[in-house]
Amino acid sequence: MTDTIISSATKEIAIGFDRPFCVIGERINPTGRKILAEEMKNGDYSRVESDARAQVAAGAHMLDVNAGIPLADEPRILAECIQLVQSITDLPLAIDSSIVAALESGLSVYQGKPLVNSVTGEEERLEEVLPLVKKYDAAVVAISNDETGISEDPDVRFDVAKKIVERAADYGIHYSNIVVDPLVMPVGAINTAGLQVQKLLHRLRTELKVNTTCGASNFSFGLPNRRGMNGAFLTMAACAGMTSAIMNPLHEEDMTAILGADVILGHDPDCLRWIKRYREPVAGQAADAAGGGGRRSGRRRARGNA
Amino acid sequence: MTDTIISSATKEIAIGFDRPFCVIGERINPTGRKILAEEMKNGDYSRVESDARAQVAAGAHMLDVNAGIPLADEPRILAECIQLVQSITDLPLAIDSSIVAALESGLSVYQGKPLVNSVTGEEERLEEVLPLVKKYDAAVVAISNDETGISEDPDVRFDVAKKIVERAADYGIHYSNIVVDPLVMPVGAINTAGLQVQKLLHRLRTELKVNTTCGASNFSFGLPNRRGMNGAFLTMAACAGMTSAIMNPLHEEDMTAILGADVILGHDPDCLRWIKRYREPVAGQAADAAGGGGRRSGRRRARGNA
Repeated sequence: MTDTIISSATKEIAIGFDRPFCVIGERINPTGRKILAEEMKNGDYSRVESDARAQVAAGAHMLDVNAGIPLADEPRILAECIQLVQSITDLPLAIDSSIVAALESGLSVYQGKPLVNSVTGEEERLEEVLPLVKKYDAAVVAISNDETGISEDPDVRFDVAKKIVERAADYGIHYSNIVVDPLVMPVGAINTAGLQVQKLLHRLRTELKVNTTCGASNFSFGLPNRRGMNGAFLTMAACAGMTSAIMNPLHEEDMTAILGADVILGHDPDCLRWIKRYREPVAGQAADAAGGGGRRSGRRRARGNA
Repeated sequence: MTDTIISSATKEIAIGFDRPFCVIGERINPTGRKILAEEMKNGDYSRVESDARAQVAAGAHMLDVNAGIPLADEPRILAECIQLVQSITDLPLAIDSSIVAALESGLSVYQGKPLVNSVTGEEERLEEVLPLVKKYDAAVVAISNDETGISEDPDVRFDVAKKIVERAADYGIHYSNIVVDPLVMPVGAINTAGLQVQKLLHRLRTELKVNTTCGASNFSFGLPNRRGMNGAFLTMAACAGMTSAIMNPLHEEDMTAILGADVILGHDPDCLRWIKRYREPVAGQAADAAGGGGRRSGRRRARGNA
């Protein structure tokens, strides 16, 4: 069993094989959000603040913070956002950028041990990001693509992940500080995407013994009822060994899928977290709670004792 | 790979490892439904008919028909219901009773090859039900309990299933005609219930090579938000190898979980069934379809090609 410890100034969490699934809130990200991007560029972080609060309230365990705005001063904005978010929540953060200077800027102001998002298997990225991860004693998301792009062959993606873990070891970074993103493909385009994830999760856990994450909603890209598919994907992934995801905690389907998986895997003793969240009847289900499967259960039991 | 063939007079379906998950509609069952029980007892099958039609419309692949009403003439009522249901749908049926005379009565009027629900590992039941299954060339649900009741030890439940499969072979019934119900425990009472199911499904598929089913809603018995938990359970079970379930196709959470699992497992080529069902936007998700995970996907791809 491998635990990846991430912390803020006052709170520590563990991403781990025997831990509840770690929900990393994805909302603080201006990519594709024009209004948010414009506001952040102008130093207006009110929406960053409300996004942070909403995700905390929805049950996120960590928050991802991204400030990727074209032609903006990303290092400064990212650092300011991280300081702001750390001032309003004690949840640990993922510092998310594809610009190394922005990662370093974020790391320099972060209180605690963050998750750096991310490094790839590209030589240049490895050489730039891994020393930073070591210097700041952080953990890092390792995305399994390299100079050749993203392979459709999951075994090639595994090999890239293995290379990153080995290279990190050269820099003195323990594999418990690497969280591998095996790269979830859109199943609408690649029909084997789900089977690939199952296979990769098994190999990553048993061979590399690393924790894992993903951009969960990639799976449903291009399909209708994306939330329904994301829920099914997240339950499957968690039950197949995925230990965290960068996802939207405001989508109830996603959270139900994750909390359900925690119950299924025995990571929610006495179902206390499930019961706490859903204690109030969900609309339209009152009748079920009273009858429904109860009779079925009774029936099977009655037979067993007959 | 094992296929269990079930048929009506004009339609054949296969429950199988490489097939879409088989949804067996559970609604035609008076247990716990006072009004339905009273109506059926009085020969009023209007609700049986509407339950049948509703489940067909909701996407069931088979319908379970149960007429278990205390102090009623169950053999006659079950036979009448089966004839009625076969007159309005070509879906194959499961003939569901704990009374052997009722099973035989249902079998005698059934058009096609039904699924007998069920036999247990109890000696008396084996000796009474298996000859009927053989005589009518049917398939049968094998419930993994015996005279000692339902064991909490999944390995004991596996052994009971194995005994039933072996005993059936003595009667000339091939294992492909046995669909094992490993007995899903309520996770609220037995926290390891989910892990038990994962383990049992693996053993049943690899060692006995049989198809599997369950009363899916047992898992959530006693918990709030049962539909949410049933959905998570069904996705997990299907992805762990369960090939059918006796479930409520009118619950959208259940169907989304199953259809999502079919996509994940590559059992829905080009996601055509998913797309057909959800082509119309689901309320509140229009914005997601346009933006949402799309940007994330784009972002990851952009990195991969950078």
